[in-house]
Formats: sequence, structure tokens, C-alpha cells
Amino acid sequence: MKWIYEFSEGSREQRELLGGKGANVAEMTRVLGADRVPGGFTITTEACVAYMEAGRSAPDGLNDQVDEALAALEHRAAKRLGDAGDPLLVSVRSGARVSMPGMLDTVLNLGLNDESVAGLARHTGDGRFAWDAYRRFVQMFGNVVHGIAAADFESELREARERAVVEADTELGAAALRELTESFKRLFEERTGDPFPSEPRRQLEQAISAVFDSWDTERAVAYRRINGIPDNWGTAVNVQQMVFGNRGESSGSGVAFSRDERTGAPTPSGDFLANAQGEDVVAGTRNPEDLDALAERLPEAHRQLLDDLATLERHYGDMQDVEFTIEEGRLFLLQTRSAKRPAQAAVRFARDAVAEGLLTREAALMTIDVDSLDALLHPVFDPEFEYEPLTTGVAASPGAARGAIVLSAAEAVRRAADGDDVILVRRFTEAEDVAGFYAARGILTAEGGKASHAALVARGMGRPCVAGASELTIDEGAGIVRVRETELAAGEEIMIEGSTGAVTLDEVPLVEPEIGEAFGEILRWSDELRRLGVRANADRAEDAARARALGAEGIGLCRTEHMFFGPDRAELVRAMFVAAERWRRSELAARTDGDAVRAGLDRARADYRASLERLGELQRADFVAILHEMRGLPVTVRLLDPPLHEFLPLEHFESELRALGRSGDPDRLRAAAEAIEIVRDLEESNPMLGTRGIRLGILYPQIYEMQVRALIGAAAEATEAGDMPRVEIMLPLIAYETELRQVRARVVAAAEEAKREAGREVPYSVGTMIELPRACLVAGAIAEHADFLSFGTNDLTQTAIGLSRDDVEGSFIPTYLERRIIDRSPFETIDGPGVGELVRIGAERGRAANPTLKCGICGEHGGDPASIRLFASIGLDYVSCSPYRVPIGRVAAAQAAIS
Amino acid sequence: MKWIYEFSEGSREQRELLGGKGANVAEMTRVLGADRVPGGFTITTEACVAYMEAGRSAPDGLNDQVDEALAALEHRAAKRLGDAGDPLLVSVRSGARVSMPGMLDTVLNLGLNDESVAGLARHTGDGRFAWDAYRRFVQMFGNVVHGIAAADFESELREARERAVVEADTELGAAALRELTESFKRLFEERTGDPFPSEPRRQLEQAISAVFDSWDTERAVAYRRINGIPDNWGTAVNVQQMVFGNRGESSGSGVAFSRDERTGAPTPSGDFLANAQGEDVVAGTRNPEDLDALAERLPEAHRQLLDDLATLERHYGDMQDVEFTIEEGRLFLLQTRSAKRPAQAAVRFARDAVAEGLLTREAALMTIDVDSLDALLHPVFDPEFEYEPLTTGVAASPGAARGAIVLSAAEAVRRAADGDDVILVRRFTEAEDVAGFYAARGILTAEGGKASHAALVARGMGRPCVAGASELTIDEGAGIVRVRETELAAGEEIMIEGSTGAVTLDEVPLVEPEIGEAFGEILRWSDELRRLGVRANADRAEDAARARALGAEGIGLCRTEHMFFGPDRAELVRAMFVAAERWRRSELAARTDGDAVRAGLDRARADYRASLERLGELQRADFVAILHEMRGLPVTVRLLDPPLHEFLPLEHFESELRALGRSGDPDRLRAAAEAIEIVRDLEESNPMLGTRGIRLGILYPQIYEMQVRALIGAAAEATEAGDMPRVEIMLPLIAYETELRQVRARVVAAAEEAKREAGREVPYSVGTMIELPRACLVAGAIAEHADFLSFGTNDLTQTAIGLSRDDVEGSFIPTYLERRIIDRSPFETIDGPGVGELVRIGAERGRAANPTLKCGICGEHGGDPASIRLFASIGLDYVSCSPYRVPIGRVAAAQAAIS
Repeated sequence: MKWIYEFSEGSREQRELLGGKGANVAEMTRVLGADRVPGGFTITTEACVAYMEAGRSAPDGLNDQVDEALAALEHRAAKRLGDAGDPLLVSVRSGARVSMPGMLDTVLNLGLNDESVAGLARHTGDGRFAWDAYRRFVQMFGNVVHGIAAADFESELREARERAVVEADTELGAAALRELTESFKRLFEERTGDPFPSEPRRQLEQAISAVFDSWDTERAVAYRRINGIPDNWGTAVNVQQMVFGNRGESSGSGVAFSRDERTGAPTPSGDFLANAQGEDVVAGTRNPEDLDALAERLPEAHRQLLDDLATLERHYGDMQDVEFTIEEGRLFLLQTRSAKRPAQAAVRFARDAVAEGLLTREAALMTIDVDSLDALLHPVFDPEFEYEPLTTGVAASPGAARGAIVLSAAEAVRRAADGDDVILVRRFTEAEDVAGFYAARGILTAEGGKASHAALVARGMGRPCVAGASELTIDEGAGIVRVRETELAAGEEIMIEGSTGAVTLDEVPLVEPEIGEAFGEILRWSDELRRLGVRANADRAEDAARARALGAEGIGLCRTEHMFFGPDRAELVRAMFVAAERWRRSELAARTDGDAVRAGLDRARADYRASLERLGELQRADFVAILHEMRGLPVTVRLLDPPLHEFLPLEHFESELRALGRSGDPDRLRAAAEAIEIVRDLEESNPMLGTRGIRLGILYPQIYEMQVRALIGAAAEATEAGDMPRVEIMLPLIAYETELRQVRARVVAAAEEAKREAGREVPYSVGTMIELPRACLVAGAIAEHADFLSFGTNDLTQTAIGLSRDDVEGSFIPTYLERRIIDRSPFETIDGPGVGELVRIGAERGRAANPTLKCGICGEHGGDPASIRLFASIGLDYVSCSPYRVPIGRVAAAQAAIS
Repeated sequence: MKWIYEFSEGSREQRELLGGKGANVAEMTRVLGADRVPGGFTITTEACVAYMEAGRSAPDGLNDQVDEALAALEHRAAKRLGDAGDPLLVSVRSGARVSMPGMLDTVLNLGLNDESVAGLARHTGDGRFAWDAYRRFVQMFGNVVHGIAAADFESELREARERAVVEADTELGAAALRELTESFKRLFEERTGDPFPSEPRRQLEQAISAVFDSWDTERAVAYRRINGIPDNWGTAVNVQQMVFGNRGESSGSGVAFSRDERTGAPTPSGDFLANAQGEDVVAGTRNPEDLDALAERLPEAHRQLLDDLATLERHYGDMQDVEFTIEEGRLFLLQTRSAKRPAQAAVRFARDAVAEGLLTREAALMTIDVDSLDALLHPVFDPEFEYEPLTTGVAASPGAARGAIVLSAAEAVRRAADGDDVILVRRFTEAEDVAGFYAARGILTAEGGKASHAALVARGMGRPCVAGASELTIDEGAGIVRVRETELAAGEEIMIEGSTGAVTLDEVPLVEPEIGEAFGEILRWSDELRRLGVRANADRAEDAARARALGAEGIGLCRTEHMFFGPDRAELVRAMFVAAERWRRSELAARTDGDAVRAGLDRARADYRASLERLGELQRADFVAILHEMRGLPVTVRLLDPPLHEFLPLEHFESELRALGRSGDPDRLRAAAEAIEIVRDLEESNPMLGTRGIRLGILYPQIYEMQVRALIGAAAEATEAGDMPRVEIMLPLIAYETELRQVRARVVAAAEEAKREAGREVPYSVGTMIELPRACLVAGAIAEHADFLSFGTNDLTQTAIGLSRDDVEGSFIPTYLERRIIDRSPFETIDGPGVGELVRIGAERGRAANPTLKCGICGEHGGDPASIRLFASIGLDYVSCSPYRVPIGRVAAAQAAIS
């Protein structure tokens, strides 16, 4: 059985056998040659499994193979483990297929003992360095391999500092470190009952066993249980020669990128510290120099580094980020990986890589991390500017904003009307606050996460939002916001940065978004390659205009209830609902009580009609504006789906009654009291599962008829103006096909009547939103009465998983993430096996029954790249997302088509 | 093309061609011979379709075929249509495949005109009868065939009465009726512009066209749209000879049953009126005689009737209910159908039919309407006793009860402890009222329907319940219940009848339930024939005992939260939850704040542990009692799934704080204030979709561990006592397989520890409740960690359809039923295409992954026969229902296996 692969033997394909780390270093060795990567070997995961099966003892042949591999390593390195002259030192690291907490940490400097430390000191000419390496090794070995508490070593170290009267470990000299090493070894013997192993081969054997054993620690086992990782995967062990960048002026360590890591410009960049180890670069105690400095100091190593970067970039087909060490003029690469890069660099690299012939368009698009593109679409804090953070919340909607603190939507509207920039600061937001969102430059809340109402609405409108800044307490009455000791009065200026969650009182300069030429090209390629359409969710003409400018191919969701939230309209809507319900009750009563209630019925009907007429006029004007912006493109208008409890807040009606009480008009008092009774009756214990969507359309059919007349009337106007409207009427929250059949008939009748009145042909289609599990299952029956289905994945997630977005974000979702029950909130990325499966079933059954059926989705997931991949694989026709996420949707859809 | 079938040609299989009515009368003609059924013919549904396609004109050949069929009818009847001597009269009726509102009503006595009326008068010797028949015909023809308003005829009739100075139509003599007929004909001519058609063949032609036309009235079309009935089904037209039971003492009319319709005893029974028409029997103006009187008056007709009843019963294999007319000694049967019968008659018939060799056991079982059996299991109002109804509500849980009105659960418990019988009267009930359910003899609510909390809990406990008695208003403060003008004080005696919804102040004698020998036999057959297991939902030892006595094969759902509602326990449970949440918060805080909060954490943990220990002892005793009752049978115990908002009512904590305020102990005040803060934080806007079920088990794992220890401890005790417990531990509200994996591991660890402590082997299995759509879709992954799945169809219905049971019953469910969007509440009978489909998917995927998986259901649907049929077809292993519905479940399961 072959238990060991030298680095030069393996490749990145052998992840299962060699673990992630082993496979990667092997690949680099293969690409750059064995001279460039410190030598070593990997003990396979199979060896680990065999070790476990043999009751924690080395399987047949393993020890011999370790001897052989070590001999080969010594031969290539021309050094020997434990040598008193120029000793070979190695690191020992675990490396499973996937990284896993609870696994053994690294052991560095293995091979040191009382003899070889002297050799190291001599060879490096640095006794302090050698003894420091030795004491670190004893400490690490004792802690990691034998489980001696780190605190015990730390207290010895503290005593050593006290004896030497110094503050920092780095001030300890060689003698003190030598003494410390001795006391560490004594500690080791006390705790383990055995002397510290001076024989390097014993050290190595124990370290290897410890890595294997760490596969079965309680923590690792629990992690595997939770994450469904089979116990029999095992972990590999990597043994690698140590190299040192701190052997004088011709040595050094650094990190380098194959291109400028900030801009993506085709010039390698990086940091370099002469005569330093990798840890020093990371620690940041000395200021590193750039690669130009390296070129001056060590031109040969610099040239070699640039060559290697180019080679690796070509090999991996992506911008690389390497760690390197130069030991006495000789360059070693310790690690390479795809470079993390900001959006502008990602976009530039992709464009340039195609121009340079490095990648095809498809491959270039795949190098872009779509999530990062958000940053290109919003102004952000100038990253160069240093500011004092006040507090931090959840990065809920990207972009930065500055304004005066206002504590209510009404105040936001007032001050914005005066031309002030304001930030709306609330504990949490509700539908009633939406007018304030329009007025404000940004939103800051104390509660809720990325899927809170504030976050959803803000993203939908492209307003920056920081949510769940839990240090905030808001005293609305006193007009004061507190953050720990700081007290802010309403009206004070504040800044938020919705891409990072930062909140500050400083005036941070903003950097304007740069879509630029390269991004434009990426978007053009994406449009050529993708099959999935990308529309936007937009409720107002300005949103529609923005969506179109960002490449939306239509509106996939125009929520008519959002049109009802203007400050002028809320009152009208409240009156309409109360009148509607009065009418409905009178009508029911009239069936049995006859003429006695006729008069009341007529009055109720008249009130109801009057509110409908006024709202109809307002809606028509809204629709005209939207259809004009979207001329020639489809616009899906969802008929009213209001959260009734938000439209009809009991407190509002109660305070109205109190206010009336003072004036005392008996008729108005009676009406107000009646309204309260109605509103109270309409209260629900679970509004999410209550009288919503088409259920309202069935209880109060006149509302939908009013909306349809307004929409068709607007479309007729638009047609006249040459705007070529393409109207799609969408009915929300369908559960039963019979609901759709009945309401569709009424909708069509109203539309036909409106067409006759307008005296114009207006094409329109009628479809439905699929937001309930039942609707997915009976999509076949539904599709017989629908021209299109649009999956509303927000509500579908709530019902399929039984989660109320309003309730769970703060309570068990965080616990679930922490315990790894879920790895993403299902409101961020669609839950594939549950909600995604329902979408698949719905689309399949719908299309089987109606082959011309169009299928799209219009939940928040429409702007999430991972979700878009799933929707593309299901074969949906389009996704619809916030206007600001349209470019992201276009690139994500292209990636989905490519992969 | 054959457009017409004589009655003697058709059969009951030809429903599509002949419509329901035509097929039925043909079958009877075939079985009894043409002599026994008044002759006639059916014009096919195909003729109707052809008539429509031809633009509302008779298709080729139809008129000729009508002539022929009419001639044949005249020949057989030896009478001629319009004959001046002894005229043939016919009825014309529509008859589609399914009965449909909006279709044409019956036209009787067609064939009368000024000549034939004289013949009829002469032949019957009753001029008044002849002219009354004629005026009725003109009226019916004018109204039904030509759409003249009924009110117009009525006003002529009123004038005629005024002219004759009489009060009732029946007092009008022949001359007055002749005059009225003339004025009806004038009215006809005025309204239609044509004289009344005196030619009987014209009359018939117009009537046939009118039936066809009625297929396309607005109302009929709308009904078809809603119910998915294709437009091209068409309706048939039935033309039948009229016979008259009022031609003297050798004539008469009646209804008869092939067996006693109340008891099922094998003696035909019925009502008979000599010298009367069928309408008179129905109108009840004269007191009918029984069949013995018929035997005396007309022995030959009586013998013939008994023969025919026996023939029909044999032919249909079911007890029959016929309408008959005797015209001058000659018996005619006009209709036969399976007799509606009360439960005791149904059971007796089934048993006797097998004994008599009439039916096989299987066929006999299929004659039973399972829903009716409920009446056999509860005492009911004596049907012979006449009482004054006070009001009526929904028949929510069967059985009758009498007791003093109490308005709160606490009062119910108090008075019951004093030995009083009480009826709990509430606007609606919540979990906190459950203790009152146990104490009360019955429950009466003003709000809610068959699936309200009151109804569900009452059915589960076998308590009679009348729900949604909307005339009730309850003034709890004043201790008064009002019903219209009646005012009842708490303490007054009241009676309710939960099988009918009746409420009365009278003292009605009760009839005890009679399961009896016949029902016992039916149940034994059912157990032999059924494949589906039947368990019961039972939370306490007395429920378990009842369930076992009624044949339950185990407990499918023991809800541990219901054990927490005893008056002694609610306080303990509240304290536990507050302590649990205090502990959880302290633990989170301790992560970051360190020692500062350690002390608080220790205190919280101690409080939490103490409440757990006390509750654990109580639960263990409960479990011991239940396991004893169910010895040898499986008991599925669901770990805690409390509606948190009901367990932790904010008002309770607030009133506690107020009470404390007066005493003023600062420590207790602080604790009470903290509890309020915790409870307020735990409030949810949609509790149904919030922190429930296993989510609580993950937030507060110690609660489940306590329950498992109590259960395994109890099982060890039971084992010792020789009770052979079969414990199944069920985890509620699973959404993610990872939840189950993690919690199962903890449950198993706690169980193993409890076994070690008890020093006994206790077998147990661990499974999960499937209540969320997601869980159904990922049932495969879940089943890998479950020994059984139990579908909780109540909650699954709520989430799959997006309906909160608490909210929708009063609002849109009634509207939906009325508009025929749904035909049953999905909380009564499972929604097959939606919820049922999810159960099917869940069971299939679960079993594919784990072939030994047991699958059952434990929602309210487990006791609903239609739902049981669906579950049987899916192939579930068992259903679990309320103890009182177990016998019903057994019979329904047998029927499902047979069909």
C-alpha cells in the first residue's frame, strides 16, 4: 500500500487522497518545479483511516515509507533532521478534504534538539533566533501534540520576562531563551511523565500520530455529525521542509499578487520585508516595502517571482495571491491561491484576461465573484479616510449616506421637503414607514437583519441601510438616540455605510460608484451568454427608470400597495378598507334582515365607491408614469396585497377617536367608533397566514376591479402616446385554482370594459404569483388559467419552512447558523432542497399543463447569485430583483449559463 | 342519430347520456317492469349539445323522434295528449349528469288546454281538481318556460282570493279557478305577445327548448365555470306520464322504506295518504297513516309495494326509500334511492344484510355512512322530546350535556371540585382554558367553527361542544350571557347538544349511546378487513383508557404540553420558561462579558434546573399512568411543542407585577420586571411561524432532556410492573434534517443515561412529526435519522395553504365555501391535491431512504373518513385520532381497504 506521496508526485485533483493542503502544494510543485517549493511529502487520508482501524497504530509499511520519504527529503535538501551542523527542520500540518475545526494545529521547527539548535545557531549566526525557534517548538509540541495547557507555558514565559525585567518576548536574549527552553522541557516531563523527545524521528512519529488522533477529538466528531462528513474520510498529514527569510539581507518574506490587487491593473503588486519571516509580514510590526524595493534589493529573486506569478496565473487561469520566502537569495513559494479582489479589480482582470488571450469570455466571467459587484453600484466611504466608528450593525443595503437624524417617517418627509438630507433612525420599520424611506438618504435600525423589512425595502429602493445596530436605543418621545455613553439629539448629522454596517459621526468623504468601461463590457458579454431574463422589482416611475438604466428587461413585480403609502394616500386607503368592510357586512346583513339595513348598505356602498374612485385616479397616474418609463418592455403589476394590520393600525383609529372626542360631532364620533370595531375585528393572530392577497380580492372584488380599470386606462393612454405598453396583471397569494378562475373572470371583465371605455385595443395577460406550497403542487391546474407564474420566494420560504421573517431573525436563526443547522439564512439564499424544490415542482407541473406558460421569480432571491444559479438550472424564464441588483443578476445569470 | 331513449331502454350506467334523473328512472323501469313506473322517455344530453351547436334549434330528426316517442307513450298509456276524453298529461324535467342550480324547474300537467281540462274534470269527476291543475300548468309554463315573474301570477291569485272572499287558495272553487286560468292566460299573452299555446305538442316543444336554453343561463354558466363542469356536457330532458293519487278512495300517495328507517329492523315502514297527491304527503297538512293501514285499505297494492321494495333492495344491495302513487288501485313507483338512515339503522342493516345472505361483509360495510356513526358514541337529546331552542351554533363535538353556566376555566374547576355539573361558556377558548375543559360537562362558545380550538380540544377529550353560537354575547365582568332578549346569569342551568348545535334552557332527557351487539360485529369485521392501523391521540391516562376501550391500537400522539395545563402546573411552566430564557441570555452574555455575569448565570441555571426537576417528577408520574393503561401497545410521546404566547401571557405577568407592587419586596419586584421584559421579547407577530417545536428544543435543550429522562424512567418502572411499554419519542416541527440529527443525538444520550440510572433495558424508538412542507420534501434526508414519521396534518394544512386556523374560520372560509372555491374546510377533510400530495411525497421519499420507516398521521384528519381513504391510498401504516373517533376510524379504514 502506498501511504505517502511526495509533493512532486501529487496534483490538485487528488484532494480526496492528499487533503486540500497536500493537493495544493503538490500542484504548485508540479507547475513551478521542485526547486521553487520547499520539499516535503503528504501521508494520505487512507493512512489515517488504516491507523484508526488498527486501533490507533501505524498501519503496516507506514513507518518504513516515512523513513524513505524523509531520507529522500534530506537528500534533496542536503540537510539532515537533527543534524548538529546545518539541520533540516520541518513543519507538520493536518490537511483534510475540507477544513474542519478541532483538527490539530501546525507544529513548526520540528527536528530541533539540544544538538541541532546549536547547528542552527551557528548556521544562521543568530543564537537568539535558534533558541527562540527551539523554545517555540517545545511549546507547540507540548501543547499541540501532548495537550499541555497553553496557559502553563505562558506563565513560565511571564516569569522569564519578570526575571529578565523586560516587557516583550522579543526582548529576551539567547541565554534567557535557552533557560526558558529548559524550563519548558521540565514542564513537559512533569505533565507527560516522559522526558521531551530529543530524537527527531520520535518527534515526527508523535506529531503524525497526534494529527491522526485529532481526527477523532470530540469537537471534530461533533462537527462531522452536524455537517454530514463521513467519519471514514480521514485526514492527511503534510511534512514540509522549513525555510527562513530571516537569514540576513539576502533573505526576506512577503506576499505578492499577479496583478494590482486593488485596481486589477496588469502590474504585479505586493509587500516585502527583508530579513524577516512570514509571520512578521502578517503581524505588521515593521512597515513592509513594495515589490520595486525587492527588485532593487534582490533583482534575481524579483525577476523569478514575477515569472512564477505569470506562470501560476496562466496555469490557474486566474489572478494569484502567493506567499513567498527568500532564503539567502533563493526564492521559495509557500502557497498560491486565487486572489481575493475588490469588484473593480475583478472586472478589470476579466476584461484584460480576454484581451490578452489568457481566458475565453466564459472563463473570464467565471473569475468574478458576483456578490462583490454590489460595491460598484453605490457610493462608499473613501477607503483611504480614517474615521472614528460610532457603532456597527448589519450591512443591510449597500451604499453610504449622510444626513440629519430623524426619528419618524413623517419627520423625514417634512425635512426632505425642506431640502434637508436625513437619515431615518428607527428601532425597526414597518410598511407605514415606507414614505420615510423615499424621503431619507439612508436608514438605520436597531433591530433586524439582512432580511428585515428595513433591509428589504431599502435594497428595493437602493437606499443605504444599516440594520440591527443593537447598541442603539431610541427614545422617540425625548427625540434622543443613545449609543453606549453617547447621546445624540434628533437633527444631528450621522453617516452610515451600508456595505460594511459602519456608523459614524465623522464626515467621511464618499467615493462615487464607477461602473466604467470594463464593467460595461462584462455586462455586454453577460447579456450575450445568459439565457435567463433579468427584470426588476419597481413600484414607482423613478425606480423603473433606474432599473431600465441598469439593464432591466422589464418589471417583474410592481407592488401596487407600495403606491398607497405616500403621505397623501394612507388616509384614503384606510377609509377605503373601512368602507369596503362596512359594505361587505351590510350586504351580508341585507340578505337576512332585508329593507331594515338597505339604507345602511347604500351609504356604505357610496362611501366605498367614492374612495375607490379617488384611489383609482391616483393609481392611473402612477401607472401612466411607470408604463412610460418601461415603454416597449413588459410590466407585471401585482394587484393589491397589503399587510392589512399595517394598513389599519388600531392605535391610529383610537387616537383619531380621542381627537374627535374633543370636538364632539356625534356623526363623526359614531363613524370613528364603528371604524375601530371593524379594525379590531380584522386583527389577526397570524397576519402572515390570514386575510391577504387574492383573499382580499375575493372579499372586496371592487378593489381589484378599480385597479384593473386604472391600469388598462393607463395602458390605453400609453398606447396613444406611442409607449407600446406590455401589461401583465398578476394576482397574489393563490392557493386554489378556483380562486384564480373566479377572480380572473372578474379581472378580464373589468379590463374589457375599460378597453371599451377607452375605445382602444390594449393587449394584456393575466397570471399569478406562486407564494404558497399548495400553489406549487397544483400549479398544473393553476396554469390552465394563467398566462404566467411568478414565484414569490419570500413568502414561499416563510410558509414552506414555517418561519415568520418578522419573528425569527433575532431569535433562532442566529442560533441555527451558529450550530450549523443551516449555513445561510433561507431569506438570503434560496433553500434548495425545500423552497427550490417547490419552485421546480411548480414550474414543471405548470409547463406540463400549459406549454406557453412563462415562469419567473420575483422574491428577494432574484438578486442573489447562488439562488440565480438554482433558478437557471430549473429553467425559469426570468428573475426579477431590486433595480440596483440588476447588473449583478445579469452577470450571475451568465455564470449560471456557462457552468 | 338516436336522440331519445324510452325509460325501458336505459339503465343507471347511462348517466352521461341520459343525465342522473333519466338514468335512475330507466333503471327502475328495467328492474320492476314498465307497468310499475309511469312511462316516458329521455331526450339525451347529446341532443342538447346539438341544439346549442345549431344556434338553439332542434337538431335534425329530433322533432320526428319526439313525435314517435310520444306516440309510443300514448299507445302504452292508452291516452292521448290533449284528448278531450281522458287526456294524457306529462311532466317535463331537466336532468344533467350532476345537479346544478340555475337549471329549469319542473313543468307539471303539460297537455292541458280548454278541451282536455274538461276531459280531466269528467274523468276524475273533480272539476276543481282539473281547473286547479290547469291554472297551475299555465302559471308554471309562463314562469318557467317564458320567464314571467312569479309575483305577477301571485298578484292575480291574490285578487282572485279577494274576489271570492277566501283566505286560502284551496278554498277557491272550480268556477273561480276557471276564471283565474283565463286571467293567467291573458297575463301570458300580455307578457309574451302570443296567446297561450293550446296545442299540447307546441307546449311540449317549447318546454323542451326551455330546458335546453336553461343550460346556458348566466347562473348555470357561472356555476359551471366555478365547478369546472365542461360546457359541452349538456342536459337531458325527461318527459313522463303524470299519475294521480287523488282519484278517490282506491288512490293514494306515500313514501316507503324497505326496512324500518329508524331502527333498521327488517320490516318495511312508511307513510301513506289515501286520495292524495305526493305533494300532500310532503306538505303534512293531513296526518298520514302507516303501511298497515295501506294493507287494510288496498291489500293488493300493499303486497305489490312490499314485493317491489324487496326487489329494489336486492337489486341495489341497499336499503331503499321509494315514492309511490296508487291510481285507482294501481301502484306506481316514481323514484327510488338508497335510504338515508340514522347510525343504528345503518349498523343493523349491514349486520342483517350479511346474515340474510343479501350482501357480503365487504358490501355490507360499504353501505354505512361512517360520518353518522358518531351519534352512536355519545348521549344525545331524546329525539321524541320537544323542547324550546334558545339558539343554535356549530355542531362542534358530539354528545349532549347539561350544567350550570360558568364563564371561566378557573370557575369551572372550582365548581366541578364541589361536585357541580358545569358548562363552560366562552367567547372563544385558548390553551389556558384547557383545565376548564376537563372540569366541564360541555363547552359553548360564541366564536369559531368546527376546527376552532374549542372544537378540537373538546373532540379530543370527548366533551360535547357547540361552537360559534353567534347570537351569544358574554359579559364576563357582570357574569351575564345574553341571547337576543334573554339574559342568563352565571350559575343558571343550560343544555347543549353537540351533534346538532342546539342550545336550550329546557331539561331535555338524554338517550344513552348504544354501541350494542350489531355495531360490535361491524367493528370486528372492520378490524379483519382493514390494513390501516388506528391509534388515538391521548394526553392523559383517562383518555388512554377510553381509547383502548374503543379499540385503539396504541397512542399516536401524546402531547406533553397538555400535561402542563393542570391548574397546579401552569405556574411552574411559566417559571421554567422564564428561567430557561434567563439562562440562555446569561450564557450568551457570559461568552463576551466573562466573569461579570457568571454569578447571574449560575443563579439562572439553578432556577432553571429546579423548575425542570419539579416538572420532571410530575411528567414521570403522568407517563407511568399512561404506559400502564396502554400496556403492550405503542405510545408516541411528542416532546414539548407549546404555543409560547399562550404559555406566557403578558397580562398574567403584568398583573403579577401589579400585585407585587403593593407588597414591595424589591428582589421579587426586580424578578417580575425582568420576567415581563423576557416575555415581551418573546412575543411574536406570527406565533404560528415562530419559535415552536424543535426550535425550542434547540434553544432550551434541557427541557427535552428532562422529558426524555422522565419518560424512560417511567418506562423502566412500567417494565418492572410487567406493563411491556413500547415508547416512541417524537420530535415536533422538524424543518431541517440537521435539527433532527442534533436533537436526536441529545435525546439518545439522555435516554441512555436514564436507562443506566434505572438499571434496566428499555426499548424505545425516536421519530419526528412532519408538519412543514419543507419536511415533506426532504423526508428522505430526515428518514435517515428517524424510526418513524408522523404527519401532523393540522399544521401542515396551515403552512401548505397559508391559512391560520385561528384567523380564517370566521373570515374568508365561509365566503370560500359559499362561492364554491372550496367544498370542505381543509381543516375538516384533508386537502388532497395540496396537503395530501405533500403527505404522499413525504411518505414516498421517507420510505425510499429508510425501508423500515413507519409512517402515520396524527392530525384531526385521522378521524375523518374521507381523509382516511386518502391516507389508506397513500399506504400509511396508521392514523391516530381522538379516542371517540377510533371506532369511526376502524370502519373508515375497512371501507378504504375494500374500495
